[in-house]
Amino acid sequence: MTITITAFERSPDGGMGLARDTRVRWALEEVGLPYEVRAVSFAAMKEPAHLALHPFGQIPTYEEGDLALFESGAIIFHIASHHASLLPDEANARARAVTWIFAALNTVEPPILELVTARILEGDKPWSKERMPLIVDRIRQRLDQLSARLADAEWLDGAFSAGDLTMVSVLLRLRPSGVLNGFPGLAAYVARGEARPAYQRAFAAQLAFNRGGSD
Amino acid sequence: MTITITAFERSPDGGMGLARDTRVRWALEEVGLPYEVRAVSFAAMKEPAHLALHPFGQIPTYEEGDLALFESGAIIFHIASHHASLLPDEANARARAVTWIFAALNTVEPPILELVTARILEGDKPWSKERMPLIVDRIRQRLDQLSARLADAEWLDGAFSAGDLTMVSVLLRLRPSGVLNGFPGLAAYVARGEARPAYQRAFAAQLAFNRGGSD
Repeated sequence: MTITITAFERSPDGGMGLARDTRVRWALEEVGLPYEVRAVSFAAMKEPAHLALHPFGQIPTYEEGDLALFESGAIIFHIASHHASLLPDEANARARAVTWIFAALNTVEPPILELVTARILEGDKPWSKERMPLIVDRIRQRLDQLSARLADAEWLDGAFSAGDLTMVSVLLRLRPSGVLNGFPGLAAYVARGEARPAYQRAFAAQLAFNRGGSD
Repeated sequence: MTITITAFERSPDGGMGLARDTRVRWALEEVGLPYEVRAVSFAAMKEPAHLALHPFGQIPTYEEGDLALFESGAIIFHIASHHASLLPDEANARARAVTWIFAALNTVEPPILELVTARILEGDKPWSKERMPLIVDRIRQRLDQLSARLADAEWLDGAFSAGDLTMVSVLLRLRPSGVLNGFPGLAAYVARGEARPAYQRAFAAQLAFNRGGSD
């Protein structure tokens, strides 16, 4: 059954891999599933056809036969739960890996999103410059805690899992800000994620796509 | 096997049910599982013993025999996936219900969290008053989209699921702001959630707990 995901027709990051289709591409590459990509323009994202797939008018979406999903976390979880290698078989270890998917998306990503919002939507406001360090401090607090938990381990809980894939993807959004530089342990963790052949393939595919090549 | 969750020793909301233990209590009540609650003070949340359970020093956590989890989304998913009634059996419907858990936590809750952050952490800043309407506008945009998707349906996708439980819990955080009043369809959806006997039991339990009664 063909898997089709959606991605920005032209990503706002110009192919840096920070849009959320990259994390889904990465999951698909980790489990070795081929997929197709449909480009969606900013205008089309707000049209009924796309809203039927994604009620919040975003990317990525995931279609596979009769199944249509949205939300990168849900898509990663769906892929991971149906194919070996991204979630451990043992029930407790599996539940802990799922916990890291949620922690990445609901605890680590929100302050990072605030940074993006502050730049894109409030960058022209008089408070923009003074407020930025407050947001960065809140991010640093989370990174301190994450760093303490990771310590010298290679991955967050045993072998590489969908939890690491999601966490690395979330942390990568910080790269343009330079905030990760203050956390050498986490920077190395992110680099280990990026070094995985599946990530490399996903990154190359989104780059080619954003440069107008075929996917 | 005894289930133990953690909750604030005294919730900052004084028992309005907006702390994240309430959604976990609700899930446990829906599936009929007894549980115990351990109070954690703000000081204890940053101590090694609690950080071993929750690396970000928050509540709730979930302990069941050898298993220890954190993140309310992960705990709700864990409960829902091991007991009937909170997730449909059919694979595609199940994947869609899981999608709504992620949508609640990663798309709807982040702008709502910004409102909380703006009040608690930036309420004394000179930009506080002028910035608030911008945040509320971003929340309204999400609620418009959610409202359009829900339309006249009772729940988001077929029968009540863990996705609805999570979404209603997230929307409830808006109650003090009055923002929900502008969305009668969503307000009625939230009210349907609150009317469920399992929610009523969970709410009463957290209220008694916050008033110093036993749980």
